Amino acid sequence: MSLIVMKFGGSSVGTTERMQRVAKRIADYKEAGHRVVVVVSAMGDTTDDLIDQSKQLNPNPPAREMDMLLTTGEQISVALLSMAIHAIGHRAVSFTGWQAGIRTEAVHGKARISDITPDRIFGALDAGNAVIVAGFQGMTDDGEITTLGRGGSDTTAVALAAAIKADVCEIYTDVDGVYSTDPRVVKCARKLDEISYDEMLELANLGAAVLHPRAVEYAKHNNVRLVVRSSFTQNEGTTVKEEAVMEQGVVVRGIAFDKNVARISILGVEDEPGVLAKVFGALAEGGIDVDIIVQSGVLGGKADFSFTVSKDDQEKATQVVESIRASVPYREVTSEVDLVKVSIVGAGMVSNPGVAAKMFDVISKLGVSIKMVSTSEIKVSCVIAAEGVQDVIRGLHTAYGLDTAEQVFVGGPQDRR
Amino acid sequence: MSLIVMKFGGSSVGTTERMQRVAKRIADYKEAGHRVVVVVSAMGDTTDDLIDQSKQLNPNPPAREMDMLLTTGEQISVALLSMAIHAIGHRAVSFTGWQAGIRTEAVHGKARISDITPDRIFGALDAGNAVIVAGFQGMTDDGEITTLGRGGSDTTAVALAAAIKADVCEIYTDVDGVYSTDPRVVKCARKLDEISYDEMLELANLGAAVLHPRAVEYAKHNNVRLVVRSSFTQNEGTTVKEEAVMEQGVVVRGIAFDKNVARISILGVEDEPGVLAKVFGALAEGGIDVDIIVQSGVLGGKADFSFTVSKDDQEKATQVVESIRASVPYREVTSEVDLVKVSIVGAGMVSNPGVAAKMFDVISKLGVSIKMVSTSEIKVSCVIAAEGVQDVIRGLHTAYGLDTAEQVFVGGPQDRR
Repeated sequence: MSLIVMKFGGSSVGTTERMQRVAKRIADYKEAGHRVVVVVSAMGDTTDDLIDQSKQLNPNPPAREMDMLLTTGEQISVALLSMAIHAIGHRAVSFTGWQAGIRTEAVHGKARISDITPDRIFGALDAGNAVIVAGFQGMTDDGEITTLGRGGSDTTAVALAAAIKADVCEIYTDVDGVYSTDPRVVKCARKLDEISYDEMLELANLGAAVLHPRAVEYAKHNNVRLVVRSSFTQNEGTTVKEEAVMEQGVVVRGIAFDKNVARISILGVEDEPGVLAKVFGALAEGGIDVDIIVQSGVLGGKADFSFTVSKDDQEKATQVVESIRASVPYREVTSEVDLVKVSIVGAGMVSNPGVAAKMFDVISKLGVSIKMVSTSEIKVSCVIAAEGVQDVIRGLHTAYGLDTAEQVFVGGPQDRR
Repeated sequence: MSLIVMKFGGSSVGTTERMQRVAKRIADYKEAGHRVVVVVSAMGDTTDDLIDQSKQLNPNPPAREMDMLLTTGEQISVALLSMAIHAIGHRAVSFTGWQAGIRTEAVHGKARISDITPDRIFGALDAGNAVIVAGFQGMTDDGEITTLGRGGSDTTAVALAAAIKADVCEIYTDVDGVYSTDPRVVKCARKLDEISYDEMLELANLGAAVLHPRAVEYAKHNNVRLVVRSSFTQNEGTTVKEEAVMEQGVVVRGIAFDKNVARISILGVEDEPGVLAKVFGALAEGGIDVDIIVQSGVLGGKADFSFTVSKDDQEKATQVVESIRASVPYREVTSEVDLVKVSIVGAGMVSNPGVAAKMFDVISKLGVSIKMVSTSEIKVSCVIAAEGVQDVIRGLHTAYGLDTAEQVFVGGPQDRR
């Protein structure tokens, strides 16, 4: 008998039939003797529909009222799921975030969970219920309703699992688990049986976006065993935990890529102390997130450096750089879009020299030039032109021994070609 | 500067435009210096849509989960209305029932309000907000979400008005106020300026059903001044209060009618003590509400008596009567549907003899026979065949001096004939 947290996203409960399938899965666990706490997101398009309604009345609605509005989506889900469980003869009780004892900071739209008091959850479990908790929401100490922001339901599930000391937190989604890369790009991508928290964090930008980075961080911090699996099949899924076993001979766990990349280069900057601080201080004040930063060597007292931002921030970042020209003299600022950041991720690469060299070799043999490089203990990232990216990902996938014998078919049998 | 409670029903906030119109009305009050608490129902068909969704998953959903589901309808309304008020430059804050401090009994689907702690409401008013409260809902002492059942939002408004000692509780609806009778039947029905709580209770079954009897009772008990008015016009509406001024020469305030009437007659009953108690005890056990009861004189130790029930209960009531034949011997049970109860209502009739006689005279001159009669201090009711009812209502309306000079036009200009 285990204590299990199950989390179902909006598409897993998007229709009556899907809701019934989820109810059946919960009932199966109860019949097997498990104690079950379920976290649910709003059904299908509910949240988007509510946002549309609000925009018609107010293009800039107060965040507090937006939280009041959006939290109804999850409340509808939990009530309906509880009814569906009753319909097949099992006890269930639904809770809003505040009823489940989820306290958050006093911030609207992106609050962090500050504390969970799971007394009512345990009471309902002890009475033989499946406990259905609304994801994505909580309450402040002043009784204000809050939402947790993006990835909120994943975070609710992980935080609840930590608070009730669950044996496992299962994240149900519309894919089978975490893949070595996006199966839509590489047909022979392999599903991973295990992965470490750190690797999962680095892979969080993979195509399927199965797990929100914030939830992974929370799981790592609280040592919550996560399983990512499909709500449509009985397949095993991928386990995310501290020490994941690496297969024989495999060093790289997966290939991630991010298409939302723009590069800004500042050329001919006077090489004075404090220049970098001035530039990136100004960007931070402008609310612009900078990812990779590369500085070339200094030549004749002048330096060149480049950094990446998201495509949306490219224009604004350029304006910020131009606005500080008086205090940071430079020759020229240039920018480039249509870039992709490709990353190889694997905890094994620290102890395997030559992993990065192989990456550069594969990319250069494909005739693609590398514009920027960034490394960490478990990751090497290269920024390249967007047009070559599919070949690069496939080449890296093969070179690091990640290809499966069989192809992965995405989108059902009709895609089999 | 007044403290005003305004209540808007589902059709008053059913579209974006209507929601904006309501927001404007609230803003006007705020600009005039009033402190405003607003109670809102779920928008348009929201509640019915949620019920439909639930039925697909569970034909008999647990009442607790139904309350979790349905209370989202009002939460959506209050959040959107608050946003609409912000959009036109005024401060507003929305509250669920529990946030507004509304406590109820621990009953789902039809809880009664047990207590209101309006601290948060006053706090928000003091901060300059219009306070928007979700109608129809509350919370038990154990933190369970409840609904108040039919007429719930009216009751929320009246109970809040009592708790915060509001100067007035305005009930906004889609008609101009309370009419002397249903304007769809009598074109020259008049809108009443004032009416007493007791009269309003008797008239509660009038066509427009503008105010739920439970809310009127609550208002009477707590002496809350009610105003029923249209959310689409600036007309004055009808004030409901303890002592309503009667116009010169008018004794009857209005004509009510109820088409949902069936008569059961038990003929040739042994006239023994306890017979009536046995019959109506059995009906009460069967959950059947009995309205008018009439017993004829006793002839040869046998009595006849009749009573009315709602049409839906006619078959079940007949079965109950047949089931107790062993303990209450009688000759025959008969029943009749297609009946209407017509009532004249007015606090003035106590001190005006001949009011009932005039009613019987008007009805008999129209060639309609009266099947049952019931009277109270402020009401005389006659049960007649349904086919004659329109003529009877029009005749009574004229006879008691209720006709306006002008006809009332219902449903817009195209109805003008």
